[in-house]
Amino acid sequence: MTKVNDNYLKLPGSYLFSTIAKKVAAYGEANPDKKDNIIRLGIGDVTRPLTPTIITAMHKAVDEMADEATFRGYAPDLGYEFLRKAIADNDYKKRGCDIEADEIFVSDGAKCDSGNIQEIFARDNKIAVCDPVYPVYVDTNVMAGRTGTYDPDKETWSDVIYMPCTSENGFAPEIPSGEVPDLIYLCFPNNPTGATITKDALQKWVDYANEHKSVIIYDAAYEAYISEDNVPHTIYECAGARTCAIELRSFSKNAGFTGVRLGFTVIPKDLEVEGTKLHSLWARRHGTKYNGAPYIIQRAGEAVYSAAGQEEIRGLVGYYMKNAAYILNGLKDAGFEVSGGVNAPYIWLKAPNNMSSWEFFDYLLSEVQIVGTPGSGFGPSGETYFRLTAFGSYENTVKAVDRMKQL
Amino acid sequence: MTKVNDNYLKLPGSYLFSTIAKKVAAYGEANPDKKDNIIRLGIGDVTRPLTPTIITAMHKAVDEMADEATFRGYAPDLGYEFLRKAIADNDYKKRGCDIEADEIFVSDGAKCDSGNIQEIFARDNKIAVCDPVYPVYVDTNVMAGRTGTYDPDKETWSDVIYMPCTSENGFAPEIPSGEVPDLIYLCFPNNPTGATITKDALQKWVDYANEHKSVIIYDAAYEAYISEDNVPHTIYECAGARTCAIELRSFSKNAGFTGVRLGFTVIPKDLEVEGTKLHSLWARRHGTKYNGAPYIIQRAGEAVYSAAGQEEIRGLVGYYMKNAAYILNGLKDAGFEVSGGVNAPYIWLKAPNNMSSWEFFDYLLSEVQIVGTPGSGFGPSGETYFRLTAFGSYENTVKAVDRMKQL
Repeated sequence: MTKVNDNYLKLPGSYLFSTIAKKVAAYGEANPDKKDNIIRLGIGDVTRPLTPTIITAMHKAVDEMADEATFRGYAPDLGYEFLRKAIADNDYKKRGCDIEADEIFVSDGAKCDSGNIQEIFARDNKIAVCDPVYPVYVDTNVMAGRTGTYDPDKETWSDVIYMPCTSENGFAPEIPSGEVPDLIYLCFPNNPTGATITKDALQKWVDYANEHKSVIIYDAAYEAYISEDNVPHTIYECAGARTCAIELRSFSKNAGFTGVRLGFTVIPKDLEVEGTKLHSLWARRHGTKYNGAPYIIQRAGEAVYSAAGQEEIRGLVGYYMKNAAYILNGLKDAGFEVSGGVNAPYIWLKAPNNMSSWEFFDYLLSEVQIVGTPGSGFGPSGETYFRLTAFGSYENTVKAVDRMKQL
Repeated sequence: MTKVNDNYLKLPGSYLFSTIAKKVAAYGEANPDKKDNIIRLGIGDVTRPLTPTIITAMHKAVDEMADEATFRGYAPDLGYEFLRKAIADNDYKKRGCDIEADEIFVSDGAKCDSGNIQEIFARDNKIAVCDPVYPVYVDTNVMAGRTGTYDPDKETWSDVIYMPCTSENGFAPEIPSGEVPDLIYLCFPNNPTGATITKDALQKWVDYANEHKSVIIYDAAYEAYISEDNVPHTIYECAGARTCAIELRSFSKNAGFTGVRLGFTVIPKDLEVEGTKLHSLWARRHGTKYNGAPYIIQRAGEAVYSAAGQEEIRGLVGYYMKNAAYILNGLKDAGFEVSGGVNAPYIWLKAPNNMSSWEFFDYLLSEVQIVGTPGSGFGPSGETYFRLTAFGSYENTVKAVDRMKQL
C-alpha cells in the first residue's frame, strides 16, 4: 500500500503567498465595488516590463530556434558557457572574487535552487535560519523531515535554530553561542526586513563556518539593490568563503525576470564536506533531475550583462528604489516605525496599536485596499511586523502611501 | 559538522547521458580526423527546428513582456489557465477522458517531474520499474534513499522490483506475482525499447493498482509517436485510472521542445493515498519549490494545440518516424535483431556476436563513428541491447544505416 511523505502533512497551512492570494481573491469577490481599488504591495513581484536589450536578445534567440542550422536542443547540464562566463566575469571577477565559470550552475530561479539545495545534505543536519526570513528555507526542510516537531503556539520547529532579527539587534542575526548549526541560511539584503550585513560582520560568519565545518547557504537575490558602501555584494568577497559557502542568485529582481525564470547557484570546487565536493553532488542532481533553463532565456540572461543591459538594469532598480524611498519616508512621516528600503526593495514596518501581523493585513486590505505581507509569515520574530514592497508602479506606490497616511 | 546526503554517494558512475557525452568528446579529441564524421543517434534529442506557429507565438509573447500593459510576472503556481485548458481539452477530453484543467500541473519538463514526483511519497515505499527503462526513475529513488543496497555484479538495487522486458515477453512487463510494489513506474511507448502496451494490458495494471492500493506513475512522453490502433494514448483511457494513476507528459518529443522546456503532470483529484489527495501534496510542492514555467514558453505550448500547430507537429513526428522506419527496415535487412520504431522514435537492437552493450558502443563509435546508447544503461535486462534514435536528420540517418550495413 502506497504511503505519502508525511513530512508534507506537518506543514501548517499553505505556502504564505498562496494564502495571501486566496485572501485577496476572497475580498475582491465579497467587495466587487472595491476590487479595482486594490493595490498589491505584497508578493515581491516586479511590474516594469523587460527592457529593450533583453527583448532584442530573446527575439534573436527565438529566430535561431526556427532555423535548423542554429536550433538548440537540450542545453548543457549546468548551463551554456556563454552565460556562465558572463556571470563569472561580471558578478565575481570584476569584484575581485575568485569564481570560475564552471562553478556556476544556471537554473530556472533562486526559489527552486533554495528549495532544492538541502537535498544534497544528510537528513540529520541541523539548520539555522534568520527569523524572520523567506519561508522557502524552512518549508523545504520540513518536507525533507529535517525540522522535528511543530509547536503551533510558538510557530517554531523543534529542530531548527532560529536567529531572531529584531529592532533590538538592528535586524542582524547573532552568531549562535550554543549548538552549532550544520547548514546556515543567510539572506542579505534580507527578505523580508531589507536589512543588510557589513563585510566585517559577514566575515565573522565565514570564519565561524570554516571553524565549525558548517556550510553557509547565502541568498543574494537582492544584491542589485545595494546602494551603500561596506555592504558585500557576494559572500565571496570574504576570505575563506570558497571552503564554506554556496551562493544563490536570481535575475528576477534586477532584470525583472520573475515570469522569465532564471537564476544560478555558485558552488566553489574547494567546498568539501566529509571529503566530498558539494560541486559534484549538485552537478549530479542537475544532471539527474533537471534539464537546463531554456536556451532563449539563457540568451536573455546573457544580454543582462551587456553594457546596454547593465544600463537598463540600473534604470529598473532605480525606479523601484525611488518607490522604496517614497514608502520609507512617507511612512516615517506618518509616524510608523519603519526600516529597510535603502539597500533592498522591501520596507519593514511595525504594525501600530499592538495589532498582530495578520490583523494588520486584514485592516489594511479592508480599510484602504492595500495588500502587504504579514511579517509573522516569515517567522515568529516577524510577528507584529509587516512587509511592503517597492515593486509596484510609482503611481500606485504614491497612492498607497497617501492612503496609509490617512489611517 | 555538515554531512552530505550519502544516498548520492551510492549512485554508481554518473548519469548515463553524461557518460556518453564524455566518451564521445574523448574519442573526438583522440581522433580529430574522424570527429566531424560522428553521427549522434544516442541521446533522445531532437534536431528539427521549431515550427512557424510556435515561433510566431513566442515572438508575440516576447513583445507582450516589453509592454507594461501586457507584462507578466510570476505565473500562477500550477500554470496558466490558457495552457491547462488547452491540454485538458485536446489531450484528454477529445479522447473521452475525464481530466479537468485544474488537474494539470504545468512544469519545465517530464524529466524534472519524473525525478521530483517520488518526493511526495514515503521513503519506505517499494518501487517497481520496467527493466530496461529511462534511468531517472531509479536514480532519483536512489537519491531519496528508497532503493536499498547496490549489487555491482548484477547492477541492481536490493529494494527495487525489476520487471524484465525482454524479447521473450515481447518487451512487456509482467504484473508482479510476488511482493506488491507501492509505486509502479510504467513508460509507454517505452524508452528505450520502443515497445507499447495494449489498452487491455494497461487496464490490467490499473485494476491491479486499484486492488492493491498502489500508485502508477505513467510516463507518456512519447505518446505522439503512436501509430497503431489499440495502443492507449493516455492511461486515463482505462476505467479506474483516476483513483490510481499519475501521468507525465512532455512537449519535447512531439513539438521539439527539448531546449524550450515544457511538460506537465496530471494528478486526478480522486487519487487519494491514506486519505490524502496527492493533488494537494503536488500542489504544495509546486507552490514551495517551483515558480512556474516561463510565460513565453507557456504561450509556445498553447500554440502547439492550435489547428496549425497540430498540423506542424504531425509533420515533425512524421519526419522522425520516416527515420525510424528507415533504421528499422535497414537493420532488419542487414540481419540485426531489431524492434520498436513503429509507435516510438526508438529502435532497440541486439548487439551482434555476443558483445556487451558498452562493447558495441565502443565498436560502433570507433568503426563507423555512430553514437548510440548502451542498453545496459537502462537496466540489467538491457545488457547486450542497444538503442538508436530516429531524432537525427534524414540524411544522417540514411548515412548511419548504410555504414552499419557495411559492418
